[in-house]
Amino acid sequence: MADTTGKTIRCKAAVMREHKKPLIIENIEVAPPKAGEIRIKIMYSSICHSDENYLGGSRPWIVDSILGHEGAGIVESVGEGVTDFKAGDHVIPSFMGQCNQCRTCKSGKTNVCEVLKGEHYLKGGMLDGTVRFSCNGKPIYHYLNTSTFSQYTVASEWSCVKIDPAAPLDKACLLGCGIATGYGSAINTAKVEPGSVCAVWGLGTIGLAVVMGCRNAGASRIIGIDTNPAKFELGKKFGMTEGVNPKDFKEPLQDVLLKMTNGGLDYAFECIGNVKTMKVAFDSVHRCWGKTLLIGVAPITDEFVTNPYSVTMGKQVIGSLYGDYKLKTISNLVTEYMNKKLMVDEFVTHKMSLDKINDGFDLLRSGKSLRTVLDMWA
Amino acid sequence: MADTTGKTIRCKAAVMREHKKPLIIENIEVAPPKAGEIRIKIMYSSICHSDENYLGGSRPWIVDSILGHEGAGIVESVGEGVTDFKAGDHVIPSFMGQCNQCRTCKSGKTNVCEVLKGEHYLKGGMLDGTVRFSCNGKPIYHYLNTSTFSQYTVASEWSCVKIDPAAPLDKACLLGCGIATGYGSAINTAKVEPGSVCAVWGLGTIGLAVVMGCRNAGASRIIGIDTNPAKFELGKKFGMTEGVNPKDFKEPLQDVLLKMTNGGLDYAFECIGNVKTMKVAFDSVHRCWGKTLLIGVAPITDEFVTNPYSVTMGKQVIGSLYGDYKLKTISNLVTEYMNKKLMVDEFVTHKMSLDKINDGFDLLRSGKSLRTVLDMWA
Repeated sequence: MADTTGKTIRCKAAVMREHKKPLIIENIEVAPPKAGEIRIKIMYSSICHSDENYLGGSRPWIVDSILGHEGAGIVESVGEGVTDFKAGDHVIPSFMGQCNQCRTCKSGKTNVCEVLKGEHYLKGGMLDGTVRFSCNGKPIYHYLNTSTFSQYTVASEWSCVKIDPAAPLDKACLLGCGIATGYGSAINTAKVEPGSVCAVWGLGTIGLAVVMGCRNAGASRIIGIDTNPAKFELGKKFGMTEGVNPKDFKEPLQDVLLKMTNGGLDYAFECIGNVKTMKVAFDSVHRCWGKTLLIGVAPITDEFVTNPYSVTMGKQVIGSLYGDYKLKTISNLVTEYMNKKLMVDEFVTHKMSLDKINDGFDLLRSGKSLRTVLDMWA
Repeated sequence: MADTTGKTIRCKAAVMREHKKPLIIENIEVAPPKAGEIRIKIMYSSICHSDENYLGGSRPWIVDSILGHEGAGIVESVGEGVTDFKAGDHVIPSFMGQCNQCRTCKSGKTNVCEVLKGEHYLKGGMLDGTVRFSCNGKPIYHYLNTSTFSQYTVASEWSCVKIDPAAPLDKACLLGCGIATGYGSAINTAKVEPGSVCAVWGLGTIGLAVVMGCRNAGASRIIGIDTNPAKFELGKKFGMTEGVNPKDFKEPLQDVLLKMTNGGLDYAFECIGNVKTMKVAFDSVHRCWGKTLLIGVAPITDEFVTNPYSVTMGKQVIGSLYGDYKLKTISNLVTEYMNKKLMVDEFVTHKMSLDKINDGFDLLRSGKSLRTVLDMWA
């Protein structure tokens, strides 16, 4: 392989030129990494529901940009001053950073890094505000500090984590968002205790990862809730003890659940991002200690409406991004996968080449896939 | 003093005959305690805002009843099987029980006792559903398991706590609700850490007790928020470091607070019970870890509306009743008062005889009092 260090690389990427339209496979240029940055050869990238939201759903991202935030790859070269990474390292780039220097990183109270989620972030730039992507001399914008729908991407060293090189990258990529988000929300955010009674709304990737987290935490009942009962069989593989289809009942779902659980859930995980479902979840928890976890991302203007006295009485409303994992600890999650504590393979329902990315989005929209993994070089 | 054990006692009480009307001082009969109950000679009782809500504000209680839930007194006699109390013990009866046998008491997750907050509670009865009060042969209903606006009351042994007999009862009565509620919400519910930045909406008794809790927990800034700046001076005695009057600003209060605190509060305590203020509090906390505590009791049909993604990002909405104190630990709070760790005397702004109780309610409605203590035998 020719040494590309310090040179601009020409490669393929799926570019978002318009919202709500297919992505376009284009040849782009990827500039070398600047100080504190690394350039990564993306090997695999999976498609997450957030990509769809940003493609023109509820939270449209700036156009002329490269989406994708569940990727895994190999460091091609590193910029000035980078010491934690070297060419050949296996890495996951992430939408969550960890600079270890800012107030939020040092707070011990959050996994959000305010530097990596700074102003550049929403403007589609790198930390210094500039971009590393271009096409025919025109800039192409970044996305969530990741842009993994490109064969090469550039990311801050603070927004990447080095992982065990033995881990298969076509599975490790899934830990860039969905699985970590769901699993961690049960383990880190809710801190589910043994014997807990839990319910999970929405049995997609995040919901199933929550189910797995509740199971690994020792929950005694894990109720999966979905209007598509075909998902229950799969859910049981992840640890679901029972499935509930709201369509099977005339009464409001909260009444069904309060009865089923003798007074309410200990933990209700909303993984859909629907404010109506959030309210049902809130109404289904135990009145003295039930925790409602808002994990699904709702449209930005939607409102969660609830009864304040129920909070005073003891119900809590909490949430987390990326399962409350600090980015650099994701390497441990990869180890858990290698040790078979964490199921990952089971989430991959489809595999295809980058060229077929729009088919992958169609599968996601139709609910037919959990995760489609794109082989970036096939 | 004649032995009244086993006999019906005739005494004075303030009876609620109609909502939104003055209470009526009447001679009533108080039956002896049944099994598991104790009859208490109430020495002092203070007036709390909840009494006003139940008198005909936002949450009207059943009429022909005796309000009052911040009282302290001396056990006159005990019913069959009672071993933890004997005549002469000094006690605080409470709206929060602790049977130590039910699921919620044993959960370790709440201070609510589901037995004491059972069906009898809202119906104005004792645990067995019957009443101990009567007037001219007609039943008078109980209230919150307490009914301290009577010279004698009967309560379950599970809803009373024995306290140090050296503690002055005209101060100890305040620990039956307001002070414990506010102080505990900072200490037990929020678990405020040293150096935290806190704000407290509403500088009444609960709000000032929150201020004191934040101070004792080592908060570095305690911002008191009230539209009546006359309260700031008093607030500073309890530990407030600065006062903010929303009327002093043209910008929304949340913007003022976000600027003042360089990104938001660690803890926002809403002690008013107003859902609009709750939203402002939520909007004023740090976006990654800010906790909004709903302590004030809102009208029962009011709704708290907020942005769900803010919760996913890390804001939490929590609350508590009675400051998360298990009832039987209130004796420790009395000890803290005796050791001068807890300020109580400073909350007593007025003292009057039971006959003047309606004047006490007027003072409360006008915002001129913190606590009016009724001398039940003056």
